[in-house]
Amino acid sequence: MNLKRLSSLAATAALLPVVALAQDAEVEEVVEAVAMAGVTPEVTFIFNTLLFIIGGFLVFFMAAGFCMLEAGLVRSKNTTMQLLKNISLFSLASIAYFAVGFLIMYPGDAWIIEGWLGMPAMTFLEPVGVSFEEVGDPEYASVASDFFFQLMFCAATASIVSGAVAERIKLWPFLVFVIVLTGLIYPIQASWSWGGGWLDAVGFSDFAGSSIVHSAGGWAALTGIIILGARAGKYGPGGRVNPIPGSNLALSTLGVFILWLGWFGFNGGSELAMGGADAVANVSRIMANTNAAAAAGAVGALILSQIMYGKPDLTLVLNGALAGLVAITAEPLEPSLFLATIIGAIGGVIVVLTVPLMDKLKLDDVVGAVPVHLFAGIWGTIAVIFSNSDASLVAQLIGIVAIGAFMAIASAIVWLIIKFTMGLRVDEEAESAGLDKVELGMEAYPEFSKS
Amino acid sequence: MNLKRLSSLAATAALLPVVALAQDAEVEEVVEAVAMAGVTPEVTFIFNTLLFIIGGFLVFFMAAGFCMLEAGLVRSKNTTMQLLKNISLFSLASIAYFAVGFLIMYPGDAWIIEGWLGMPAMTFLEPVGVSFEEVGDPEYASVASDFFFQLMFCAATASIVSGAVAERIKLWPFLVFVIVLTGLIYPIQASWSWGGGWLDAVGFSDFAGSSIVHSAGGWAALTGIIILGARAGKYGPGGRVNPIPGSNLALSTLGVFILWLGWFGFNGGSELAMGGADAVANVSRIMANTNAAAAAGAVGALILSQIMYGKPDLTLVLNGALAGLVAITAEPLEPSLFLATIIGAIGGVIVVLTVPLMDKLKLDDVVGAVPVHLFAGIWGTIAVIFSNSDASLVAQLIGIVAIGAFMAIASAIVWLIIKFTMGLRVDEEAESAGLDKVELGMEAYPEFSKS
Amino acid sequence: MNLKRLSSLAATAALLPVVALAQDAEVEEVVEAVAMAGVTPEVTFIFNTLLFIIGGFLVFFMAAGFCMLEAGLVRSKNTTMQLLKNISLFSLASIAYFAVGFLIMYPGDAWIIEGWLGMPAMTFLEPVGVSFEEVGDPEYASVASDFFFQLMFCAATASIVSGAVAERIKLWPFLVFVIVLTGLIYPIQASWSWGGGWLDAVGFSDFAGSSIVHSAGGWAALTGIIILGARAGKYGPGGRVNPIPGSNLALSTLGVFILWLGWFGFNGGSELAMGGADAVANVSRIMANTNAAAAAGAVGALILSQIMYGKPDLTLVLNGALAGLVAITAEPLEPSLFLATIIGAIGGVIVVLTVPLMDKLKLDDVVGAVPVHLFAGIWGTIAVIFSNSDASLVAQLIGIVAIGAFMAIASAIVWLIIKFTMGLRVDEEAESAGLDKVELGMEAYPEFSKS
Repeated sequence: MNLKRLSSLAATAALLPVVALAQDAEVEEVVEAVAMAGVTPEVTFIFNTLLFIIGGFLVFFMAAGFCMLEAGLVRSKNTTMQLLKNISLFSLASIAYFAVGFLIMYPGDAWIIEGWLGMPAMTFLEPVGVSFEEVGDPEYASVASDFFFQLMFCAATASIVSGAVAERIKLWPFLVFVIVLTGLIYPIQASWSWGGGWLDAVGFSDFAGSSIVHSAGGWAALTGIIILGARAGKYGPGGRVNPIPGSNLALSTLGVFILWLGWFGFNGGSELAMGGADAVANVSRIMANTNAAAAAGAVGALILSQIMYGKPDLTLVLNGALAGLVAITAEPLEPSLFLATIIGAIGGVIVVLTVPLMDKLKLDDVVGAVPVHLFAGIWGTIAVIFSNSDASLVAQLIGIVAIGAFMAIASAIVWLIIKFTMGLRVDEEAESAGLDKVELGMEAYPEFSKS
Repeated sequence: MNLKRLSSLAATAALLPVVALAQDAEVEEVVEAVAMAGVTPEVTFIFNTLLFIIGGFLVFFMAAGFCMLEAGLVRSKNTTMQLLKNISLFSLASIAYFAVGFLIMYPGDAWIIEGWLGMPAMTFLEPVGVSFEEVGDPEYASVASDFFFQLMFCAATASIVSGAVAERIKLWPFLVFVIVLTGLIYPIQASWSWGGGWLDAVGFSDFAGSSIVHSAGGWAALTGIIILGARAGKYGPGGRVNPIPGSNLALSTLGVFILWLGWFGFNGGSELAMGGADAVANVSRIMANTNAAAAAGAVGALILSQIMYGKPDLTLVLNGALAGLVAITAEPLEPSLFLATIIGAIGGVIVVLTVPLMDKLKLDDVVGAVPVHLFAGIWGTIAVIFSNSDASLVAQLIGIVAIGAFMAIASAIVWLIIKFTMGLRVDEEAESAGLDKVELGMEAYPEFSKS
Repeated sequence: MNLKRLSSLAATAALLPVVALAQDAEVEEVVEAVAMAGVTPEVTFIFNTLLFIIGGFLVFFMAAGFCMLEAGLVRSKNTTMQLLKNISLFSLASIAYFAVGFLIMYPGDAWIIEGWLGMPAMTFLEPVGVSFEEVGDPEYASVASDFFFQLMFCAATASIVSGAVAERIKLWPFLVFVIVLTGLIYPIQASWSWGGGWLDAVGFSDFAGSSIVHSAGGWAALTGIIILGARAGKYGPGGRVNPIPGSNLALSTLGVFILWLGWFGFNGGSELAMGGADAVANVSRIMANTNAAAAAGAVGALILSQIMYGKPDLTLVLNGALAGLVAITAEPLEPSLFLATIIGAIGGVIVVLTVPLMDKLKLDDVVGAVPVHLFAGIWGTIAVIFSNSDASLVAQLIGIVAIGAFMAIASAIVWLIIKFTMGLRVDEEAESAGLDKVELGMEAYPEFSKS
């Protein structure tokens, strides 16, 4: 606390009235002026950092949500493997993002190719106990809090993949993919928008990552599904689709509630500031809109599954809620509650319509990750133009196509390299007996399983 | 940030010393005055809004808690249905409350019948990016944050009902009830107190809703239980009660821990402010008292069930903790830790004593919602008078009776209308085979169930 | 808000420039001075209190994490008992800590033996609605928020014990131990460091409790394991170890994710302040380091279990993550992300190496609590010296030995007194049939179990 220059001219300007009046003024006016001085830069810094901290731990918890969702949707013979994949992928993502990912994503001026490819480097946090002007002057929040928050987004991208390719992929090849995805692929494309790269310059608008996180993860999942092939027995002759029910829907429902909770941090935290009345009011709007879209996604899927199948389908309702969340993620701030409800409901409808489409194409997505994250993510990215007057359809389409092309190509290359070196898929015997017994020698529910 | 008039005279007054001294004073006094200026209105606004945001996401998570609690206490043949009901009821409540409920509950000046019935209207949030004096002048917090927080209370009321009527009610009739409950019934009675209506004028005091949320939900549950009738086989001839054990007590225990966590937001957020030292100290007291009451409720039920049955009963201990929470909810601020412990313990005792009473009356409450939410809620509402000197027994009884009468009558009317139009109850065959197979065609644990 | 003296001279000094310049200065300088005035004492108070509140509810949730972890690692015939023990121990800890523990741990000047033993007394919170200078003058945060936060640490110590001694200890004797542990034993040794006692004076440094909470709980667990003896059938003749697999690894994985989440409050809250840019930046660093250590602990255990056994072991990976968390707890602030990763990874390695060691010694620790909390806690306490220049190896070793000796002796005495009065262990028949049926008459999964 001292007399160094303020970097923030806005904050300075806000205080001018205090001074002007202090020179020669009536008491009441000075009182008002001081009162309206509002929020000092340091208090703003604390609030913004706190938003990242709260947002960060909420998004962290989404790792648990994905884990429970996926563990409940696989068969019990593959549950231990799914649990292990999820905790391992999060852990490896944490290391990869710190080792290279974060600075690839936010290169500042250190681009290898300006706007396209940042310089990889290990992240160092600000020193301990620095004073406000040291840590805060050029920053609006603690670097460590920003890192903590962004790390969780990166890990979420990998969590999206793990469910889609479940029940037949080997552990270590999957984890190698995760390391490349979270250390390189995700950060590179995310740098284009959030790191101030070329997509940002084009005017592409994706508030919290309908495309940058969710569709990106969805593309990585889709290429994995194609390259891996479907689970044994999933598709019979003559286009027959054999349903493979999840073993624990209570767990999956819990997972969706946890994801829903975490999404308040995902979208709310992406306001990136709450150190002013306008900013915190925006965070509040985002909370309300995020909830509305999730609810509408669930209701949309509930009603449509009742109409299409004569019975509501819990797994579609769960995925409908998630699709509503994905859909609102690209623009959770500007819509009215009514528009957020519509955007979310369409997300839910998309899931109900595209889950069977995937099966028609023999794309075996165990948890419905592609409909939820890729398809609803595209919808959400387009839907930005309905409320955000700065967004243009052209820019949104450029972003969708560019992220999609890059993610699909880069993921496919990595999947294929792994396939032809380490191998991707367990052998038939292991798949039939279950990955838990054969690959891990440990069952998730040893006392309950029929087998 | 500007020179417009401050609405808050208190805030203005707080700054007077600064000015008075600034005219002609010793340096040290001015320093002190500025330092003690405390919290500017904008910072207060941010803190208050943040409290609603944090409170809101914690209370949101209670939806997951109720879902897990109930899913674990039903038989596995009805688990998918219970999961579906819970996520659907929360989603529909979100839409109903936004479409009409919130403004019925907080009508401002827009009453149809002054103090009794607000004008239904769709909620619009404050515009995006408004500055402090625009959004904040007449408000102490963001409207959107308040909406977000209050919505979660409304949904909780419906969650209370779903457990009580489980295992025999049809999905869609139940959801129709939820829509009416959350869009109309709950908001109308809540407007009487929290919306500045007649109960508030009478002096009825219910800090976070022992009556307004919990007993209200309990009455809706009780009328549903009566109109639906007991589950097949629950009550045998000669007053025999056949216990129907829950299928997954681990899930139920998790649910209670989640509810306990969420209650910190439920009660703490109901302080409605933390933008001053006194307010945030109050929130802290509430946290400590809420925890003490929950703990004491669990211990009370633990000891009493040991004494009465020779063995402690986990489900009674779980419900005891919840009853302790319900009991402290009407006044979590004023009691000492010791008194909060006593209030909670009596809540736990009430559960152990009234669960068998319900069975004696052949009221088949699957999860114990009526003892926990209605009976402990009444106790908590009365217990306000032990610590809050502004409360009177008469006013508390008026509130208990008025809310009870309205909720019971309104709920009964809606239940009966649904019963004689759509029908409420599944047929015997479906009840015997399980709602999951017959109504939904999807089992929660397809690989584990005995059946 | 008023003119009373500020206790905090630092805060006063921060405002001096405002005044100095206000006398006779250029407008811009005054503007800067006001802007840099930073954070007023009351705002600091609110932020600090809010940190305790958020930290408190996150650490509370660790009770759910421990409960799920342990419930998943026992056999289904003992699951109800494990659930009951966990909710009961938390509830009793809440009461014991309020009744005597908190003021033993923070005696202020009320020592019975200066620096060694505080005076037991019941906790009273600050009065309702006190103004800042009343509540805040000598305090940096609300007393109630501090109590709320510290209570959760005390309860965590007891949660560590319950898993280790599972599947053979009787309920009530265990709960008696919990009351003594949380009301007396834990608070006494914690007062030595955190209460300003002799270990603090020696220079022992344990930021959030690698020793004070985790090793302390580990010692209580270890003595319990020794005095109870192993579960029937665990150790066969000729040194054979019979694995007893947990019944629900999905639950255990969820538990670890919840613990990981809660640890952000555990370590982050232990900064004890966020009312300044430096403090909140420190909290952020702690968040990032805590996550890095957990991730590295999981990865360390993943890789080492693959190397040692040819297959990764989910339970070791789960415990590896926890060991990483325990290891970073003694100093989560000072290390770089890289060092935090190393510290956590070594924690994970310790678990993989010491779990079989425990079995070699026929110490039957059902959940691996001793390797995770005691061994990794010792490692973490020593690792402080690698980054904190104020710490010395000698002081750390004094703390480790002193806490260990006291915890082991005090716990052993209490365990033995209980053993020879109430008895500790269920009889063979009950152990074989399962504690749920025999002791409680209630199964956790009545429809699923094979038995």
